[in-house]
Amino acid sequence: MSHTHITEFTVEFGDCDPAQIVFYPNFLRWMDSAARHFFEAAGVPPWKELERTTGLIGAPLAEVSARFMRPATYGDGISVETTVAEWRGRMFVLKHVIRRGDEVLVEGQEVRFFARRRTDDPARIEAVAAPEEIRRLLA
Amino acid sequence: MSHTHITEFTVEFGDCDPAQIVFYPNFLRWMDSAARHFFEAAGVPPWKELERTTGLIGAPLAEVSARFMRPATYGDGISVETTVAEWRGRMFVLKHVIRRGDEVLVEGQEVRFFARRRTDDPARIEAVAAPEEIRRLLA
Amino acid sequence: MSHTHITEFTVEFGDCDPAQIVFYPNFLRWMDSAARHFFEAAGVPPWKELERTTGLIGAPLAEVSARFMRPATYGDGISVETTVAEWRGRMFVLKHVIRRGDEVLVEGQEVRFFARRRTDDPARIEAVAAPEEIRRLLA
Amino acid sequence: MSHTHITEFTVEFGDCDPAQIVFYPNFLRWMDSAARHFFEAAGVPPWKELERTTGLIGAPLAEVSARFMRPATYGDGISVETTVAEWRGRMFVLKHVIRRGDEVLVEGQEVRFFARRRTDDPARIEAVAAPEEIRRLLA
Repeated sequence: MSHTHITEFTVEFGDCDPAQIVFYPNFLRWMDSAARHFFEAAGVPPWKELERTTGLIGAPLAEVSARFMRPATYGDGISVETTVAEWRGRMFVLKHVIRRGDEVLVEGQEVRFFARRRTDDPARIEAVAAPEEIRRLLA
Repeated sequence: MSHTHITEFTVEFGDCDPAQIVFYPNFLRWMDSAARHFFEAAGVPPWKELERTTGLIGAPLAEVSARFMRPATYGDGISVETTVAEWRGRMFVLKHVIRRGDEVLVEGQEVRFFARRRTDDPARIEAVAAPEEIRRLLA
Repeated sequence: MSHTHITEFTVEFGDCDPAQIVFYPNFLRWMDSAARHFFEAAGVPPWKELERTTGLIGAPLAEVSARFMRPATYGDGISVETTVAEWRGRMFVLKHVIRRGDEVLVEGQEVRFFARRRTDDPARIEAVAAPEEIRRLLA
Repeated sequence: MSHTHITEFTVEFGDCDPAQIVFYPNFLRWMDSAARHFFEAAGVPPWKELERTTGLIGAPLAEVSARFMRPATYGDGISVETTVAEWRGRMFVLKHVIRRGDEVLVEGQEVRFFARRRTDDPARIEAVAAPEEIRRLLA
């Protein structure tokens, strides 16, 4: 059973577009925020600390996808339920389900990997296998 | 041969995150903007005008996906090349390729549909088949 | 004694810029959100309802100003304390104090007015005196 | 006569709110971008380079203010004219005039200062007098 975390957000006026509904990239913004809260709730140390201890600088995105089932508008309270859906080599898949009450609004997936700076060129990054300790925290 | 349009953007400081690279939802924001410029360049009238003449209120999103191959940072000039990749019943797929010079940074797809207000409940929308004239403009 | 409302936000990774601190326009975004929560908490009906009953379509901005005393970074919990500082003819001044715990980070002011559509040209708006009932709610 | 720079932007659908007009913090976002383009056009090296050569890490904001005269909506092309309005000790004032064609939409001011990391605590910054060479470039 994978660790699950729910992050709550309020849809604000400025998150909505002239069609009066959430401008869709904001749903991805909330998924990114939910990912960080998920890591934090699981006990993964903040990136700054992790860089000092493990060289890991974060968990950048390789792919994202989302299906939009129902719109939301300002004043709505929404929740993002996040879990690790799959480990895929050096990649892992975060699944996010965004709801308003019981209604599913959006289902999304982020494919991420743990990254460190390349020793031959610190301006570039490379994927590394998720450290065993972090896998245990997220599992 | 499908209509193609290229929209240019500059990556700004505020588009980037503490990792010094583009905060990924901004790539989706640029894809959404590129979609509107693509419609405009193809000769599709603005939504406001289209609503008066056809009842269409826009082309909302059903799905989005993106693969992130290379990051970008502030000061970078990027281009988004947009085309209709597929008509799929009432849906159509916009393909976006985001480049910095010749380098492909991101490949994305938006699945959209043309929408009008439901006659039984104007607060809700429904998908309609793309009008023949608009299909011709985008083809 | 004026009505006061406190709105809480969490600073997210994507709210921060390459200097690792909040990208400043986000503080204004939170002030705008805090203004809506302030109206709501005071009992002012949502704009959509208000337009039907009073013709008022919202409280657009005439001026904004902010002083930045301390930065914030992701993970920080911040609060925005909002109050009406002054009624100035058809304008009113919202004062926002943004804090992290006891530390004041930002002090801001929004000068707003209540607006309705012009009868001679509904695409344009005009300032109207704040209805007595709304003044009472906000006072 | 001070150096002047004009930066052009297009208002996108996602920059607008449910009132169909630009969500006001975006005007501040464009002012921030215009400031960077102004520095660049004046010949000020990028922050990363400047940090290596002078220890300066950027020009953070102390204050911002803006007056909103006319709204803008998506599809509008806007320009931001930027100039140094005043040197005020360690502070300097950037004046931004945002126009659509000849119409002034917004007038804004950013009070900024040049900053470097404190030697006693590199996590904190302090204002330094603008280097003579940079003052010459911006004058």
